[in-house]
Amino acid sequence: MNIFESVPNFSTSDENIIEILKGIITSGGGTFLDSTSDRDHNRSVITLIADNDRIVQILFDLAKSAKELIDMEKHRGLHPRIGALDVLPIVPMGNSTMNEAIEISNKLGYRIGSELGIPVYMYGESAKIPERRDISYIRNMHFQYEELKQHILEEKYKPDYGPAVLGSAGAMMVGARNFLIAYNVNINTDDVSKVNMIVKKIRSGKYFKGVKALAFPIKSKGYTQLSMNIYCYKCSPINNIYNFIDSEAKGMGFDIESSEIIGLLPADAVTLSLGKFIKADISGKNILEYKILGSYGNR
Amino acid sequence: MNIFESVPNFSTSDENIIEILKGIITSGGGTFLDSTSDRDHNRSVITLIADNDRIVQILFDLAKSAKELIDMEKHRGLHPRIGALDVLPIVPMGNSTMNEAIEISNKLGYRIGSELGIPVYMYGESAKIPERRDISYIRNMHFQYEELKQHILEEKYKPDYGPAVLGSAGAMMVGARNFLIAYNVNINTDDVSKVNMIVKKIRSGKYFKGVKALAFPIKSKGYTQLSMNIYCYKCSPINNIYNFIDSEAKGMGFDIESSEIIGLLPADAVTLSLGKFIKADISGKNILEYKILGSYGNR
Repeated sequence: MNIFESVPNFSTSDENIIEILKGIITSGGGTFLDSTSDRDHNRSVITLIADNDRIVQILFDLAKSAKELIDMEKHRGLHPRIGALDVLPIVPMGNSTMNEAIEISNKLGYRIGSELGIPVYMYGESAKIPERRDISYIRNMHFQYEELKQHILEEKYKPDYGPAVLGSAGAMMVGARNFLIAYNVNINTDDVSKVNMIVKKIRSGKYFKGVKALAFPIKSKGYTQLSMNIYCYKCSPINNIYNFIDSEAKGMGFDIESSEIIGLLPADAVTLSLGKFIKADISGKNILEYKILGSYGNR
Repeated sequence: MNIFESVPNFSTSDENIIEILKGIITSGGGTFLDSTSDRDHNRSVITLIADNDRIVQILFDLAKSAKELIDMEKHRGLHPRIGALDVLPIVPMGNSTMNEAIEISNKLGYRIGSELGIPVYMYGESAKIPERRDISYIRNMHFQYEELKQHILEEKYKPDYGPAVLGSAGAMMVGARNFLIAYNVNINTDDVSKVNMIVKKIRSGKYFKGVKALAFPIKSKGYTQLSMNIYCYKCSPINNIYNFIDSEAKGMGFDIESSEIIGLLPADAVTLSLGKFIKADISGKNILEYKILGSYGNR
């Protein structure tokens, strides 16, 4: 039995909708693991796992419900987004392969496009056009649902699956990828331009490998959020990233107020970071739950 | 199905013996999780889990093999020890209760005493005499196998199970306890008396709750090892202990060379420590493997 993780990103922070989505996962035979909602971003990230027999139907049902429940015409939020179910990543776990994850993503892209009439862009390992590997080629701070509505007939935005027509559910990015960590560091300043100087350094690739960064003003809390995706947590341990931002922020006279893990961390990532700090040679293999799971063949 | 963890401590670092012991665990239907051997201590710690139907027989069989394979008359090592299978802790996991763990420890104590003729002292939550709760009331740096041989007929050393006669397998401490973390910090000095000043502070209870400490000279590596058992990893996070020892050592002109986790860490302990460091509110629930395991009902 091959297991896959998926981390769908929905353009809502409505608890009632999240409850409905959880129900779809559970009744479809999947395992709901976690959900994180953010009101400022008006966005929710659900983590689930399911085996290869069930994953396509569960994710299709989530896409269908998101289309029915979320109206992009009314959606406001900080995070860039093009659709109700905005990003749908498929991650191979344990013995599952990336090729299987790509196959699943294509089955999903095809069904979501043809049965739900939603334009689908394949990204990550599933990208059919090299530039689309990176989500930000299509969707970024300056090009979101509203812009896509005006430009969807242009060649650059031709969907991989589904019609070149944007309804109130918007469009969707679907793709296979490796495990990533979503990590936010909150800095006690409202000067986003200063934080953007740190963002640029992180993005430059000179200090870290496989880390993408963005800065958001979080007005409700009076700080600026440096929001990152860590694509290679082994090359770029969390504690190194934290230390780098801490010293950069201090150099500008700011402090880190807090940091946040969105979704789940593999045991490996935590031990690697803690291990560096306490000069200990530890890995996921030192974690009880990791070992128990490994011994039951679920890795 | 209720699961228990056990972390038997054997007075040997012989790989061939460890292989035999592993085989006993696996063929008995238990799950071998980890083993750590130390040549200077001449000691090995095995971590295993098994359900309530199998745990007693597996641990009894380990005790029987240790009696056959390890000769205390020939054993030399830094760590205090009174027997071949020196300490046999039973730890309740998931839905298992401490009462069940105590019951299992008594069944084991009785069988090891009567069938193997080994004197057994019940410790921890299973202690029948309040002073014996703490292992060091019976076994400590100054009172080991050799001393017990001379004093076993005294009232203080009367076994809870088995005869007051010491064979070459020595005696055994058996007891139920909560999860503990064995943590060593290695300091780059051969001046054990200086490190003992840190040990005293840690033991005083003024700085940390539920941490026991000892210092050993590790001549083969030229450093002093501050060896700890953390009985309450939630009250005394690893990173706080590390930081405390680091600043104490630096105050004496020394440095921490490395630190070591012996056996396994619960996901909770790692996230708690890392969370404090990166100012993030994370716990075991942020760990993928912990969540997967929880969802399968094994916690």
